[in-house]
Amino acid sequence: MTMTRWEMTDYGRANLRLACVPRPEPRAGEVLVKVAAVALNYRDKLVIDNGLGTHLPFPFTPGSDLAGTVVATGAGATRFAVGERVISVFFPGWIDGSYAGSAANPPGAALGGNYPGVLAEYVAMPEDWFVAAPHSLDPVAASTLTCAGLTAWFALVEQGRLKAGASVLVQGTGGVALFGLQIAKAHGATVFVTSGDAAKRERAAALGADHAIARDGWVETVHRLTADRGVDHILDIVGGAHLARSLEAVAVQGRIALIGVIDGVELAGAARHLMLKNAVVQGIRVGHRRALDDLVRAIDANAIQPVIDRRYAFDALPAALDHLDRGAFGKIVVTLD
Amino acid sequence: MTMTRWEMTDYGRANLRLACVPRPEPRAGEVLVKVAAVALNYRDKLVIDNGLGTHLPFPFTPGSDLAGTVVATGAGATRFAVGERVISVFFPGWIDGSYAGSAANPPGAALGGNYPGVLAEYVAMPEDWFVAAPHSLDPVAASTLTCAGLTAWFALVEQGRLKAGASVLVQGTGGVALFGLQIAKAHGATVFVTSGDAAKRERAAALGADHAIARDGWVETVHRLTADRGVDHILDIVGGAHLARSLEAVAVQGRIALIGVIDGVELAGAARHLMLKNAVVQGIRVGHRRALDDLVRAIDANAIQPVIDRRYAFDALPAALDHLDRGAFGKIVVTLD
Amino acid sequence: MTMTRWEMTDYGRANLRLACVPRPEPRAGEVLVKVAAVALNYRDKLVIDNGLGTHLPFPFTPGSDLAGTVVATGAGATRFAVGERVISVFFPGWIDGSYAGSAANPPGAALGGNYPGVLAEYVAMPEDWFVAAPHSLDPVAASTLTCAGLTAWFALVEQGRLKAGASVLVQGTGGVALFGLQIAKAHGATVFVTSGDAAKRERAAALGADHAIARDGWVETVHRLTADRGVDHILDIVGGAHLARSLEAVAVQGRIALIGVIDGVELAGAARHLMLKNAVVQGIRVGHRRALDDLVRAIDANAIQPVIDRRYAFDALPAALDHLDRGAFGKIVVTLD
Amino acid sequence: MTMTRWEMTDYGRANLRLACVPRPEPRAGEVLVKVAAVALNYRDKLVIDNGLGTHLPFPFTPGSDLAGTVVATGAGATRFAVGERVISVFFPGWIDGSYAGSAANPPGAALGGNYPGVLAEYVAMPEDWFVAAPHSLDPVAASTLTCAGLTAWFALVEQGRLKAGASVLVQGTGGVALFGLQIAKAHGATVFVTSGDAAKRERAAALGADHAIARDGWVETVHRLTADRGVDHILDIVGGAHLARSLEAVAVQGRIALIGVIDGVELAGAARHLMLKNAVVQGIRVGHRRALDDLVRAIDANAIQPVIDRRYAFDALPAALDHLDRGAFGKIVVTLD
Repeated sequence: MTMTRWEMTDYGRANLRLACVPRPEPRAGEVLVKVAAVALNYRDKLVIDNGLGTHLPFPFTPGSDLAGTVVATGAGATRFAVGERVISVFFPGWIDGSYAGSAANPPGAALGGNYPGVLAEYVAMPEDWFVAAPHSLDPVAASTLTCAGLTAWFALVEQGRLKAGASVLVQGTGGVALFGLQIAKAHGATVFVTSGDAAKRERAAALGADHAIARDGWVETVHRLTADRGVDHILDIVGGAHLARSLEAVAVQGRIALIGVIDGVELAGAARHLMLKNAVVQGIRVGHRRALDDLVRAIDANAIQPVIDRRYAFDALPAALDHLDRGAFGKIVVTLD
Repeated sequence: MTMTRWEMTDYGRANLRLACVPRPEPRAGEVLVKVAAVALNYRDKLVIDNGLGTHLPFPFTPGSDLAGTVVATGAGATRFAVGERVISVFFPGWIDGSYAGSAANPPGAALGGNYPGVLAEYVAMPEDWFVAAPHSLDPVAASTLTCAGLTAWFALVEQGRLKAGASVLVQGTGGVALFGLQIAKAHGATVFVTSGDAAKRERAAALGADHAIARDGWVETVHRLTADRGVDHILDIVGGAHLARSLEAVAVQGRIALIGVIDGVELAGAARHLMLKNAVVQGIRVGHRRALDDLVRAIDANAIQPVIDRRYAFDALPAALDHLDRGAFGKIVVTLD
Repeated sequence: MTMTRWEMTDYGRANLRLACVPRPEPRAGEVLVKVAAVALNYRDKLVIDNGLGTHLPFPFTPGSDLAGTVVATGAGATRFAVGERVISVFFPGWIDGSYAGSAANPPGAALGGNYPGVLAEYVAMPEDWFVAAPHSLDPVAASTLTCAGLTAWFALVEQGRLKAGASVLVQGTGGVALFGLQIAKAHGATVFVTSGDAAKRERAAALGADHAIARDGWVETVHRLTADRGVDHILDIVGGAHLARSLEAVAVQGRIALIGVIDGVELAGAARHLMLKNAVVQGIRVGHRRALDDLVRAIDANAIQPVIDRRYAFDALPAALDHLDRGAFGKIVVTLD
Repeated sequence: MTMTRWEMTDYGRANLRLACVPRPEPRAGEVLVKVAAVALNYRDKLVIDNGLGTHLPFPFTPGSDLAGTVVATGAGATRFAVGERVISVFFPGWIDGSYAGSAANPPGAALGGNYPGVLAEYVAMPEDWFVAAPHSLDPVAASTLTCAGLTAWFALVEQGRLKAGASVLVQGTGGVALFGLQIAKAHGATVFVTSGDAAKRERAAALGADHAIARDGWVETVHRLTADRGVDHILDIVGGAHLARSLEAVAVQGRIALIGVIDGVELAGAARHLMLKNAVVQGIRVGHRRALDDLVRAIDANAIQPVIDRRYAFDALPAALDHLDRGAFGKIVVTLD
């Protein structure tokens, strides 16, 4: 039996093609998953463009975030039954708490990078690389939890210990930002969203943002709206010079989760803000499997619907990547049904 | 009755003089403390030179870290009895946990800055601004806990939750660094000290440092000594470009406590280290009174002797400040006996 | 100028009378508060009946939970301006984090017990004994936060670190239980309420309880509803033999907050539940002032309306106490307007 | 090839015998370990006597705590190389943080109980069931970390967040108690040990106990020695009525780790101690693999030597069990060299 999957024959989007290959068999400890949806991330673009610093073994299949159904199990695989709906885990080896890796060579092996990707009709992978999908979401929505959903949850809940009445600021209206908004509201927080686009601000407000504010002068706006108190949690998805501004906006004993490096790969900002405020900058890279399980429970308990900007058919991956280039309001998902 | 105290009549060390003034009386809620020793900090130099950004009300008495004895109590002051030995609290208003202040105007009112200082034979201050001195230390040693001791404790223990077997790196051999070394050893940690001076490295090793290493190439040395694992806790007392190197040296899920800005007031370094390692940069500014009480207990329980580089007589303050300029191995203390 | 207040001339409800006394003046550091509402607690009944083990200085005014307005400030009192609305702090000396006290004589000095009470038209107390009232509540609702609201918040949020998707069980429909329900829902939790009264279960469901279940067989019901998983957080307001059942119902690594001793003053239950589940029983006694500030923020951010069973006029205190005897759905409040 | 191992043919010590069986081969993902030492626990006695409530599949090999050397690896097993020294993990499935299990049927599958045991010349088990042994210990000492060492570490460090200057009390001088003493001293704590035997108290003092006190009247002794403050951490290894006394002895905001049920399987004690002191009773059942890794690091960094009461040859297991019956000072270990 054969199946279709996306493969890169070299770096660059021009070298991405649909290939017909044998359907994999699950080996011992593995499950075979029929893929229903794959959510795309900005990282997928970078992997396709240049491998993100990794030497990819071509042909290489990108993509990390799938939702699908277990259709067969390998010897000794007992974690899921055939027919169970699952989503993938971004970092296969990070189960809970600590993770391995060295200061000199930080860990980073994820699906669709150092590990094979999921833009395929079927994948056969170790059963430990999946968690049960939420009951309340269809596959398109469920696929967005693996990376964007977990990143926002890990920053705000697992490491930020968010509580009701605290304030949260998310930058922009991409996938992580809108998950941050929804997760923060589910915890009773007051949420600020910045956007340079008035229409997107309106949509963010409709999703529950207490304050959808313009990007220009956002720090001053935050100071004004909070009577100078600042915000307790900032999801800094922009990085670079932007971090300097986040440091001005963060409240005393507040936390900045550094998630993105769109504007620059170097830290920037006045050290005195960190020191005088006893504040924290915490680097975030998605999160571990146990937190993904927690997120799934929270999604089900609160009927949170991830924001999907647009769905693309499996063979329309190039158009979906073009959409990623232009920026999305929430997530872009490739569907396989 | 009169007493002697140091006063600034304007910014600059030339405007520092000994003045004879009336001995203060303790008002309601205050205690009168006979000062026995005042430990100096780098900050005292900056306050004397330029007020550290604050408009000081002249004549102004600098100094924050005293050890002394309660000699009289004002109405309603019950926290200490006459005869009890006390040390001062750096931030009078920060009792425990959270503290007040805004993002726009971070809190920072400390003794010898926004509050009056302690380079005086007697001070009358609210009883809440003192804690009981450790039983095991003489006043000269006890006076060093208020700022340098608490800073290291707060970074490593209160916020770093240090445990035995973890690794700690302190930069240099100043007051905070050597407290970091001693506190880390008291918790069973493995300690790295960097110094550009071979003699100081020997002294650090004699104090218990497991690895006293040269400043040049210290990151590479750390990688080598830890088989690339890195160190779990770094007390970054240098700041500036140095932070970039700390980010390379820190272990996965490690913590960098940003304490000093000797080399630069701007953050620097590659964001990817923070993100890939899920690491933290935590701004530290001394700590709260409850943690100072905890430190006092730890000092007494472990017979830790703070490292005093040299004592100066009260009227030799200018020579003591010159010594601060040259750098000290541990603390410099002015005595009043 | 005079005012009215409730005074006990001896233990027992028969010795409670309205007295006309001079209106107090705020001393240095104090504020004078015009009382608008006083929420009653089960503890007030016990203090009136027998002093709860304390020798009360008669005449004694009971009551701990007030909402009111600052009408004058003593010398040096700067925390509140005249006209500001405040609520009282249950434990005056517990600001944040740790609190003082010995193992042999545990701390317990609270308003309306070891400290004077608030069932009076005016009280003059240290400014530190108050926090700003929430903007979104009238005085009757605001007065209920001091003890019942903070107890539930402290157990679930400050010490329980509740997160969305977790499950919470509260026992009964008294003041603490219904606050627990509302606070848990504000954090996105799934909430179980037990009650022996079908009408109260309906009202709990209307307040947002996901599962309002009968008291009989509640552990089995919980096991069934959770597929044997159990609940993560239990507010045990009953104590005694009931704790044994909470131990059966709590999830692996769950927490039981022990709050009440209605059914017995001795611990009970099988140790193996605690050990096999790595679970925790945490004793809760209200909470500290900083957490009360956090609760006020959460109340305002989420428009939570405390549940008031019935209001009584100031001179109807005996009828209000009779209502307490019968049990209430939420809180009973005495008003002074 | 054959090997020798201990097997039970039925419950009861009379049914324990040495058997000659084929040496196992490591399957995929497994390692073959040549066992050098097996530390015994009180639990082993109970498993042998009655299965501890589990239906054992006879013939059954008991024992959970081994130190040994990897002598072969199965397909895909990469965690250890041949020749590496390892110790076993008590709960194979508990890697870090959370663990699975239900409230109705708490988790408890451990080596030598629901899983096969290790009293054998060789064992073949999944590589995930081992961690690297400390460099500083011989196999006899290393084998004691798996259960007794980790139990004390988990209670005091992982969940108790012990810091220097805090006080710790351990009951008796068994394996967990003496590890508690050593781990607490490595963290700079002040340690109390209770024992009914003056000679054992002397030996505990020689190991570093600050206060080795008689069992009779131990609570009053603790109150006296601490000026009524109590102790911050208690390892309650006795349980039953003893817990009631621990509740009297624990400090405000202190923690009682409930570890043993020698004196009774039911909780006991006055609820008011928990509530008034905002104290915690935490059930402990050994701990997870990551904490065992942390303990190994701490052992190596601090040259902690576990206390071995006596070693027994492999064929002297019955005598070793008799010694367990009489009680030991530290650990009893069976050696296979």
